[in-house]
Amino acid sequence: MQPFCAAADWGTSSFRIWLISEDGRAVAERRSDEGMTHAAKAGFAHVLEAHLGALDAPKNLPVVICGMAGSRQGWQEARYLTVPAALSEIVERAVAVEGLDRDVRILPGFAQRDPSHPDVMRGEETQLLGSFTGRRLSGLACMPGTHSKWVSVEDRCVTGFSTFMTGELFSLITRHSILRHAVGQAENCRADSKDFLSGVAEAHADPATISQLLFTIRAGQLLYGREATSSFERLSGLLIGSEIAAGLSQFSAGRPIHLIASGKLFALYRSAFQALGHEIVAIDADEAVLTGLLAGARRYWPSNHHADYGQLKA
Amino acid sequence: MQPFCAAADWGTSSFRIWLISEDGRAVAERRSDEGMTHAAKAGFAHVLEAHLGALDAPKNLPVVICGMAGSRQGWQEARYLTVPAALSEIVERAVAVEGLDRDVRILPGFAQRDPSHPDVMRGEETQLLGSFTGRRLSGLACMPGTHSKWVSVEDRCVTGFSTFMTGELFSLITRHSILRHAVGQAENCRADSKDFLSGVAEAHADPATISQLLFTIRAGQLLYGREATSSFERLSGLLIGSEIAAGLSQFSAGRPIHLIASGKLFALYRSAFQALGHEIVAIDADEAVLTGLLAGARRYWPSNHHADYGQLKA
Repeated sequence: MQPFCAAADWGTSSFRIWLISEDGRAVAERRSDEGMTHAAKAGFAHVLEAHLGALDAPKNLPVVICGMAGSRQGWQEARYLTVPAALSEIVERAVAVEGLDRDVRILPGFAQRDPSHPDVMRGEETQLLGSFTGRRLSGLACMPGTHSKWVSVEDRCVTGFSTFMTGELFSLITRHSILRHAVGQAENCRADSKDFLSGVAEAHADPATISQLLFTIRAGQLLYGREATSSFERLSGLLIGSEIAAGLSQFSAGRPIHLIASGKLFALYRSAFQALGHEIVAIDADEAVLTGLLAGARRYWPSNHHADYGQLKA
Repeated sequence: MQPFCAAADWGTSSFRIWLISEDGRAVAERRSDEGMTHAAKAGFAHVLEAHLGALDAPKNLPVVICGMAGSRQGWQEARYLTVPAALSEIVERAVAVEGLDRDVRILPGFAQRDPSHPDVMRGEETQLLGSFTGRRLSGLACMPGTHSKWVSVEDRCVTGFSTFMTGELFSLITRHSILRHAVGQAENCRADSKDFLSGVAEAHADPATISQLLFTIRAGQLLYGREATSSFERLSGLLIGSEIAAGLSQFSAGRPIHLIASGKLFALYRSAFQALGHEIVAIDADEAVLTGLLAGARRYWPSNHHADYGQLKA
């Protein structure tokens, strides 16, 4: 089956691209670590064409992109939309990359231009676009990651959001802080681990003391010989628990919580929410971003327009 | 005037030594970055003797040491005293370094052996010993640093304490996180800066959201072009404000707060406490540690015992 378009999620340190069929399915995929940081040196067009070539994509297959490729330091700036903003605006306000033979569109991110609470996102807006669709109009979204986003969506409009540096702090602490001695070579946190769940509960109960709770990991190693895996799981639990406490305190409680995540992070956050007594609506982040990108593609390139791809390619 | 003894504060990454006169004054001083991490490779005795030699100290001048030199990874372990513990115990339970011609004593630190709140300190206990003396018997101590300590002292007994990783997080964030772009080359925070003080107030008002407040620094740079100095000062204020909020919430309010610090950190924390409406008792950390070390020296080496130093040296 000929692809209808390509869709890419181009982050700071990661790159993913899919070929999408006419019926909206991903029929081929490539992932790499050629994120914005890499591509800013290697050349965005060069990286993109190399992957499209490896996927044997037609030369004029159009591409829709979300993420950091649209930042000021990226390929071509897709200026932030200011919230409150309708999710549909993301599609309307994409920019076309100039000077290419190929039709490449980059979706914009969101900015919260509130001097007392400025915030930005790039990439997550497309997951939201793909999540709040059909009969799902409103809710609170929790999007874990390097910079976790908590987003309030009302009637398909983003009304406000907050970023928590959970994933980045986790990485900094395990690699560079005194706690690196305690976590050692551990690198897997089990979602049902006792240490993870007690970390979640403790930090959720007293999130203000997070930097003190973190030090208990060091002290626990020194005084009680706590093992690396246990320390690693406790660290993960403490950071996630404090994020959930702060996120729930900022956004009105009682609304359905949509957990938009994949893989290990999905499992950890779901386990944490469940342990804290919160039901979640589970949304796969990979599916969500693809659905969001496809919404753009359908708009820019009505499918019948591309009936001659095979011919062009040959 | 002949020195009575030498006194050293031997931290993880810093080393300070003073020669102390009979009347308890520091008559000479050296500082270096030959902390435990360095000395564990170079040899503790070697580092110590080099500094004593440079100070022209008598060959048999005794030395009292506090800090990480007494840790398990240090020179010779001075096992933690378990709190609650009287400050006087620090002097009683010092260890003599074995196998030396010189009389060298290392003071022990404190451990809080509470599985739900384990904690440790090495070095700060000697500052406490030097601070809670004379008519000062009780109070809450705030000791800012890489790992800030908040300590409850009652009748010269440490009843409990908490460590906050404020200084280390500041260092990690400015050097390794996404915020390093926002703080740029800035390296000075003015204690009266508007950005510092608003950071203190915001984090103190909502310490649970610290990782979200941190990200506003990045967003403020992207959306409002916030300058490096402003970002640096805001970062400092946010971390200190959240520490103060958590510290005060954990330790009973209403007790006098003793700020034991020196230099820039003293100025920043004093300014933060004042802005938040808390009076403090100011104690110079350098004087405090010297007073604490001297308390040990007076006990181990009654002064008349060393009347023949000049003679021995000659």
